[in-house]
Amino acid sequence: MSEKEQAPRLRRSPEQVRAAVHQAVVDLLSAADGEELNIPAIAQRAGVNHTSVYRRWGGLDALLADTVTTRLERNSPLKDTGSLRGDLIAWAEASVASMRTPEGRALVRAVVLSMPGSALPEGERAGQFERRMRSIEQIRERAAARGEQAPPLEQILDQLIAPFYIRTIFGIELPASGYPELLVDRLLGPA
Amino acid sequence: MSEKEQAPRLRRSPEQVRAAVHQAVVDLLSAADGEELNIPAIAQRAGVNHTSVYRRWGGLDALLADTVTTRLERNSPLKDTGSLRGDLIAWAEASVASMRTPEGRALVRAVVLSMPGSALPEGERAGQFERRMRSIEQIRERAAARGEQAPPLEQILDQLIAPFYIRTIFGIELPASGYPELLVDRLLGPA
Repeated sequence: MSEKEQAPRLRRSPEQVRAAVHQAVVDLLSAADGEELNIPAIAQRAGVNHTSVYRRWGGLDALLADTVTTRLERNSPLKDTGSLRGDLIAWAEASVASMRTPEGRALVRAVVLSMPGSALPEGERAGQFERRMRSIEQIRERAAARGEQAPPLEQILDQLIAPFYIRTIFGIELPASGYPELLVDRLLGPA
Repeated sequence: MSEKEQAPRLRRSPEQVRAAVHQAVVDLLSAADGEELNIPAIAQRAGVNHTSVYRRWGGLDALLADTVTTRLERNSPLKDTGSLRGDLIAWAEASVASMRTPEGRALVRAVVLSMPGSALPEGERAGQFERRMRSIEQIRERAAARGEQAPPLEQILDQLIAPFYIRTIFGIELPASGYPELLVDRLLGPA
């Protein structure tokens, strides 16, 4: 029995369907050569009708954005290490670990595929970015509550987040050790 | 007469065909919703047979990489300002200007579409990145010839190049003025 025939019999809940579609996006992004990422291919892999994907998400960009934000939230529980420096290093370590996996790289690819020039509405793009930044905002708020002064969000973006993304995008090996500490030292000054 | 019918009559040179295909990639990346970027669509827009695109480039990823490197070389003549700081700021200003244009954003998108996880061979990806870095290497070599000490290439990537790319990718407005200087100050220390 093909996947396609199996799907309607499973009577999956909307949440199960949503998870299956997200997984199909990640699988295709991890493996594909860039030509296969379209809604019919995603729907087929997830075992759902492509019309229900269009109905639920509207288009590929919105689906990519939803996949990224859902998966990133699942992947990023936030440690409280007791200091701004420690929190940022822990966050960066989790990001390094994530970007060493095919799924992590697939998510970066998905973020970028829904970038400007695409049909994703401005508001959704901003929302997606803000969700990605929510962990960093939490780290900044905790620092403020401790009386520590944290750099502005945009500086953290430039100096801590951007290097991970760019290396993942260009396929440059992340340094084997000490990279999170190095970036945080550049951001905050040496410990 | 449709574009498709016109094409064979034009008897374009291989270089003209190559330029037309590159332009079609940029046009589709500037406008498309991510679902239309495939070789048949590119070939149709360029007015060439899709089999000749496959024959010449092998696949979408190699075509994207070739487009990016060709366009970036065309777009990036290198100023010699007489100092490392000046050269880096001039380079960054040119990058900011480029990323404010739809074509510049399309090229970033093309870089990313040919990133790891795709079928582009490892060697070509590295080649593409090195070509992008060639300007920076030239700036570093000039600095060395003047007796100035330049930061390692990877640090320039992290602190100067990554912030532009990440902001372009996330659709975050680049600061209206002073951004190149700010990034170079962070990289080299204040002037």
